[in-house]
This record gives sequence, structure tokens and C-alpha cells, in this order.
Amino acid sequence: MTIAHVMSACDMTTITGMVRWEPGAGGRLREAALELYVERGYEQTTVAEIAQRAGVTARTFFRHFADKREVLFAGSQELQDGLAQAVRAAPPATGALGAVEAALEVAAEWLGRDHPHSRQRQSVVEANPELRERELIKMARIGAALAEGLRRRGVPDPEATLAAEVGIVTLRVAFGQWVSRPEPSDLGALMRETLSALRAVTAR
Amino acid sequence: MTIAHVMSACDMTTITGMVRWEPGAGGRLREAALELYVERGYEQTTVAEIAQRAGVTARTFFRHFADKREVLFAGSQELQDGLAQAVRAAPPATGALGAVEAALEVAAEWLGRDHPHSRQRQSVVEANPELRERELIKMARIGAALAEGLRRRGVPDPEATLAAEVGIVTLRVAFGQWVSRPEPSDLGALMRETLSALRAVTAR
Repeated sequence: MTIAHVMSACDMTTITGMVRWEPGAGGRLREAALELYVERGYEQTTVAEIAQRAGVTARTFFRHFADKREVLFAGSQELQDGLAQAVRAAPPATGALGAVEAALEVAAEWLGRDHPHSRQRQSVVEANPELRERELIKMARIGAALAEGLRRRGVPDPEATLAAEVGIVTLRVAFGQWVSRPEPSDLGALMRETLSALRAVTAR
Repeated sequence: MTIAHVMSACDMTTITGMVRWEPGAGGRLREAALELYVERGYEQTTVAEIAQRAGVTARTFFRHFADKREVLFAGSQELQDGLAQAVRAAPPATGALGAVEAALEVAAEWLGRDHPHSRQRQSVVEANPELRERELIKMARIGAALAEGLRRRGVPDPEATLAAEVGIVTLRVAFGQWVSRPEPSDLGALMRETLSALRAVTAR
């Protein structure tokens, strides 16, 4: 299944609407926050400083984000929805892991757009236990959404949960490798390689 | 590989030393805490109440546990060490997934001892988001320890991480099914069935 195939089966406005720095205050606030987290550290940065660098008020910040942590995780609900949608939209004859692969293609498309940004964000998240835990929880929620999508396709448990969790492991491992590389590379290809490696591990 | 095989390869004092309610204040405190969490809810229970029911002072509580959350997670470090030890102790010719299977046998031996207790604990953890997150973090740490154990056996990444994560998925799914059943069953057998189901999912 190609990305184009998956994309055409998905809600294009959902998928294509997710540019990283949307114009306006929200995008400027995200950019300013990430800059400050990298420069000074996440814990040392205040909402007031983020707002100031973005040229808006703290009140505007709170219209966009609940707190300084959420700046880093905004969009994770949309990512989750996009992946669940890809699972739902996979052709009816597609098996459990095939539907998960379709979701991984969408994830690669989404997460693989801006390597320097992803590397910066990762360095901030890795440096802070609270943020690492938040990332874990986010991935667990995405896994639960994928499993639910598979059950709605008629895949019984435990197969639905196992296929979804295999997808999450693949996503985490491939994304981790991708951000650890200094140069940009094709995240979709890396996801496919990682899934092949996982299949080889379990086939032995 | 049988459980006896794994056990004989492991540090028996570590493995067999992990009885659930050890005699003395620590065991009484755990039992009292779980009773109160089930009766009144985790959030509504205080350390003073746990200590009172166990017939000890709050000071004694804090000699055993950092806080009321840790009562539920005491032993998770030993579980992690026991699994890492099983990975290290697997015969040299054992592949990555085989070493993980040896760890799963130890996990089943450890976690599968007291079904009523595990069900009660699970109901408390499931009812509280903070505890569910703590459980996730604990499992992520165990996965990292298994991967590290595999790397020390010479398994390269990403295979080491993938095999370890496949083990964690198997453990979580099998344990979840086991505690959801009202009657006790063989957790080791369920782990093996779950790993077979995972292999079938990835083989398709």
C-alpha cells in the first residue's frame, strides 16, 4: 500500500492541515518555546518568556496551550486521530498488521516532515523525566486508539491489541533511530525496515 | 526451556525470596494498604490509616515505603532485576527472543503466584490515572533493562530493543488477560500463547 493510497483513503483536510508552524500566534509560540527550551532548558523557561519572544501576551499563550508542557505535545491528539482514521480507512480485505502498516505510513508522513525540529524537540523531551513520561503516555494512548480501530474492523482480541502494540513498538524504535541521526532521512522507509526487523526477530 | 531450567540458571535466592507477604511490618503494611484502597479508594486512603490498620506507626510506614503509591510498586525493581538476570543467564546459543522468553517464564513465576491479590491490585491501579501512568513507566523501565541485557549478550540494535519490546507487549497483554479472568489460571501458559499469537500476527 502506498502513501498516496492511504492518503486518498483518509480525510485529506485532517492530514494535510497539519503543517508544523501554522501562521499566527500558535505557530510563533511553539517556535519561541522550542528555541527557549533548547537555549535555557525546559525547566528554566517560563510562559511569560515564551510569550514575550513570540511577541504576544501570556493571556494569548493560554488561549493556545494549557501550560508550557502542552506546547511540546500539541498535535498529538490529531496524530492519534489520523492514525486511527488510517486504520479505519484501510481496504476491508487488509489484515490487522496491514491496517497498522497503513497507519505507520501516515505517522511517517506526519512526523517525518521536519528533521531539525524533531531533533530539537527530542533533545528537550529526553532531558526531562516528566516529558519522557508524557511521551510514553501519549504513545500508550495512540496504541489503545489503534487497537480500538482494529476491533471495529472485526479483529478480535488479543490480535487487535498485539497488532496495535507491534505498530507502536515499530513507530517508537524507528522514530528514535531517525531523530538520533544528524542528517535527515526517509522516516517511512525506516519504519518499513524496522517492521521487517521486528518480523525477523519474531520469526526466529 | 522450562521454568526449572531458567530458575536453576538464576540466582535462586533472588527469585525465591520474593514471597508476597513477607512476615513483619512490610507485609502487614502492604496487605493493609491494598485492603483500604479496595474498600475506600486509593485517593481517599491516608498513610496514617494504613499504618493504623497494620498496627504500626506512620514512622514505620515510611521506613518501608516512600509514600502510599510505592506500596503498590514495591518489588518492581526486583522484578526488573530478576528478568534482566534471566536474560543474562540464558544459554549462550539462545537467540534474542529465546532469552526474552526465559525472562517471561520468570515473570510468570513471579507475577502469577496470587491471582486474588493481583486482581485487587489491578482494580486499584486501573481506577487511578496516576497509578496507570506509573505502571506504564515501570514497564518501560523493564523493557529498557531487557534490551540492555540483550545488548550485553551481543545482540545489536535495533534487534535488542525490538525483542525486548516484543517481550513487554507479551507480558502486558498476557497479564492483562490473566487478571481480567475471575478464576486463577496458568500465567506462564498464557504468556506462551500470547507470544504465539504475536508471532502469528507478524507472520501474516
